[in-house]
Amino acid sequence: MSDGAARGEAHEREAERDAGARAPAPVTFVIFGVTGDLSRRKLLPALHALHAQGLTPHGCHVVGTGRDAALDDEAVRALAVEAVHEALGDGADEGARADVVRWAGRFVHGQGTPGGDLAPLARRLDELEAAHALPRRRVFYLSLPPGAVPGIVEALGAAGLHERGGGDGDACARLVVEKPFGRDLDSARALNALVHRWFDERDVYRIDHYLGKETVQNLLVFRFANALFESVWNRDHVESVQLTVAETLGVEQRAGYYERAGQLRDMVQSHLTQLVTLVAMEVPSTLDAAAVRAEKLKVLQTARPLAPDDAVLGQYGPGQIDGRDVPGYREEDGVAPDSRTETFAALTLHVENWRWQGVPFHLRTGKRMLRRLTEIEIKFRRAPVWMFRSMRGRAGDAGRDGAPSDGGAPADAADADAAEAGAATGLHRNTLVLRLQPDEGFSLYIDVKAPGEPFRIRRMPLDFRYRAAFARIPEAYQTLLLDVMQGDQTLFVHADEVEASWALYAPLLDGRRTVVPYPAGTWGPREAARVSSR
Amino acid sequence: MSDGAARGEAHEREAERDAGARAPAPVTFVIFGVTGDLSRRKLLPALHALHAQGLTPHGCHVVGTGRDAALDDEAVRALAVEAVHEALGDGADEGARADVVRWAGRFVHGQGTPGGDLAPLARRLDELEAAHALPRRRVFYLSLPPGAVPGIVEALGAAGLHERGGGDGDACARLVVEKPFGRDLDSARALNALVHRWFDERDVYRIDHYLGKETVQNLLVFRFANALFESVWNRDHVESVQLTVAETLGVEQRAGYYERAGQLRDMVQSHLTQLVTLVAMEVPSTLDAAAVRAEKLKVLQTARPLAPDDAVLGQYGPGQIDGRDVPGYREEDGVAPDSRTETFAALTLHVENWRWQGVPFHLRTGKRMLRRLTEIEIKFRRAPVWMFRSMRGRAGDAGRDGAPSDGGAPADAADADAAEAGAATGLHRNTLVLRLQPDEGFSLYIDVKAPGEPFRIRRMPLDFRYRAAFARIPEAYQTLLLDVMQGDQTLFVHADEVEASWALYAPLLDGRRTVVPYPAGTWGPREAARVSSR
Repeated sequence: MSDGAARGEAHEREAERDAGARAPAPVTFVIFGVTGDLSRRKLLPALHALHAQGLTPHGCHVVGTGRDAALDDEAVRALAVEAVHEALGDGADEGARADVVRWAGRFVHGQGTPGGDLAPLARRLDELEAAHALPRRRVFYLSLPPGAVPGIVEALGAAGLHERGGGDGDACARLVVEKPFGRDLDSARALNALVHRWFDERDVYRIDHYLGKETVQNLLVFRFANALFESVWNRDHVESVQLTVAETLGVEQRAGYYERAGQLRDMVQSHLTQLVTLVAMEVPSTLDAAAVRAEKLKVLQTARPLAPDDAVLGQYGPGQIDGRDVPGYREEDGVAPDSRTETFAALTLHVENWRWQGVPFHLRTGKRMLRRLTEIEIKFRRAPVWMFRSMRGRAGDAGRDGAPSDGGAPADAADADAAEAGAATGLHRNTLVLRLQPDEGFSLYIDVKAPGEPFRIRRMPLDFRYRAAFARIPEAYQTLLLDVMQGDQTLFVHADEVEASWALYAPLLDGRRTVVPYPAGTWGPREAARVSSR
Repeated sequence: MSDGAARGEAHEREAERDAGARAPAPVTFVIFGVTGDLSRRKLLPALHALHAQGLTPHGCHVVGTGRDAALDDEAVRALAVEAVHEALGDGADEGARADVVRWAGRFVHGQGTPGGDLAPLARRLDELEAAHALPRRRVFYLSLPPGAVPGIVEALGAAGLHERGGGDGDACARLVVEKPFGRDLDSARALNALVHRWFDERDVYRIDHYLGKETVQNLLVFRFANALFESVWNRDHVESVQLTVAETLGVEQRAGYYERAGQLRDMVQSHLTQLVTLVAMEVPSTLDAAAVRAEKLKVLQTARPLAPDDAVLGQYGPGQIDGRDVPGYREEDGVAPDSRTETFAALTLHVENWRWQGVPFHLRTGKRMLRRLTEIEIKFRRAPVWMFRSMRGRAGDAGRDGAPSDGGAPADAADADAAEAGAATGLHRNTLVLRLQPDEGFSLYIDVKAPGEPFRIRRMPLDFRYRAAFARIPEAYQTLLLDVMQGDQTLFVHADEVEASWALYAPLLDGRRTVVPYPAGTWGPREAARVSSR
């Protein structure tokens, strides 16, 4: 038997051991801030989608709390129905709409004022579980502004709601917290300490919704199912990694929060850093939460903390998006006219371990960029030798791609290598692009010979697009809420990761920062080229 | 400066050195067998296409010879016009058709009987060159049945036509020979010896038209421009290589030749073996003809000669192609009713060098197959560990592709791995498919996570298709004829390669062979599974 066949059989035995469904046991889902934007736009539609797909067959009761004094059971149900109808859109038929109403029948109002005494909520949960013969399996989802979180955590503890409850091995009391987790290393440590006073880390689910995106999850599958790429996923073969999260939106209605946060706190420390950990992590012993999160943490621990010079920060001025004039950041509602909050950040991380030493991880993110784009580019090293002299000689042509002038910093790989190739050589780097949005998928850029004469090398993508291959791509929150119910912490951020991540960026947050203006509708300030991949 | 930038600049300097056109000098192209099928369908249209694309700006006179006594200058011109008009099809406009007539004005008849005294042809060439002030640059293209080749070579030599001519450094007398080059090692050696009595090897162009196909040429570019793949192009990462050349055609009008040849001589020893050398060769020092052909030869020299048991031979019986009944081989015109000629061959080559030891090269080719398909599949090793237990557990599904029953031997990669995956594991091998026909291009099959729940891994291709990216793909003969005119032997087969290739297959040609029947319209006899990749 060949090695391959033997490995195949080992796989098979393991796969069979794993078979058998594990739908989540009944769960009571408590949403703090049920009337809020996140709850309406994401949480309630996601809970309904899980129900509609039959992924919560044992039921999920929802308890909604909010500061609105008029909130009662009826109001919570009506809110849920309205939110889901809105999410379903006009395409839903009558049957589906009626089903939403039936589904919302499991919704009740959580008695008691958030932030105040939660004893009434505790009684309400006891009653609910008694009335429906439910196990004590509770999820507390804090869909609240960062400032409200510590108070609720205290109140949950004071009311004994942090207790898992005895007897039933399935009993649970899980706390779900939205980012940002603190606003620097000290505040993150304090928040973690507070949470840990009441909750065990295994019951704490820090949501970074990027981790729920299919393409991000697929990074794990992509890396660890495809031996071809994992074998070149290291400093010997990778020259640099570029992560881009570009929005065309500005600060919108969030100036109150954003003025104090900025792009480093809002995007870099969380989303982009999480993406780095998934790209850079070693192969874990298993894909269990503990193993995965331990490997992610190791990336953060081996990354070199940034110096102020390692980053370029920017702030958008007036400009054009899609031909429409948009105001500069300082003209936005709620923004100080002399604000020095950064809406753009570009920086280079160095992960100094055996796998990645010498391979820069370039991070770039901004608001009011030219295009909406989230992608990870793995740039592999070029072929060491240009061998095509004799073939080129056949018909005598420069043999190069036309090199468009690099006006600014195009973020996607399709443009990215062309200028470089024109400037330096007929060969391009092989580049793997994992695109998270829009149009999720993979592209592997390779060099091919253009047919015919003269001899020319062209950079062309091998493409895979999710939407072409699969009908439906679920929302990130569906994935994450189901994981919470099932008790799978793999895609959630561990306390240690949060602190290690803040530690990396501490020098950028503390120091006196230079914030460079850039016109809205561009790829950011030109100065960013200093820390990007070109 | 980074290593990459330094290499880039080195590339640039080299690229600049290479610039500057090298269109071929004027050439006189002598076609022996100008009235034959190959000449009409391929050579004349290819010569015209080169002219029409401006690739022979210094002119190309054509001298056609044939056994038809009525052949004169007018007849040769008319033949050329007719052949090109046929190739252009109804789509060509009046201007293009008139241009063909003008172009054929450079055609003359080659005086003298092929196979007889070629002194009259020599005089005609001298006259032509004198009349048009042409350099003595001659190409002799033997578009003749194998049996006629030795006589013409002798006659060329006897008439002094093998002589390059002095003075002008550009002068040449090139001999182009179509495959088959002999019918076994001894006859190939004898043919090479005869050719070398008159012609230097640097003037001999053995055409294997597969080597002129864009995708085959692109193999060189693909391998040596793309560091990503070259770095995994070895026994550590590749599990097996499958080469498939499947035709739906039967023997057609060629029984007279084919009965004595068979698939091993007609396809395996030539086309498939050439493909193996291009896939398996080491990186040459340059892409010059000498360097490339030396590396190809080393592959053949390190391949283990086949034993009779290493191959499965087949012969098609009656069956269906595209819903149409077709006769078996023994019922075809000109085929003996007890013929033991093989129309199918599957075998495994072992290239026993440091790069490939232990990696089987599976070759498979046949007539009257289910589909027309020429492709090279590089099957990479599977991930060593199945890591997805915890992710699978999320929703509990077998997590496998549906495994279609493997009825016979589907030749293309899209089907190929599915059955195996279903039978053995949730993971598939990464597979790179280089498709030569139909629909030339590359597909890289990777494992991705199917969106949503339950957790499922799906095998999906990253695709590149030439026709989607480039308007026009030239015919193989255009490439090869231009190479002959330019004196580039890279894509032609060296005498040593021919002999080494025959040596590999000698045991299969000499021994008493078992030929297994298979129904037309299938992937060949089931017994072939023994020597194929599944």
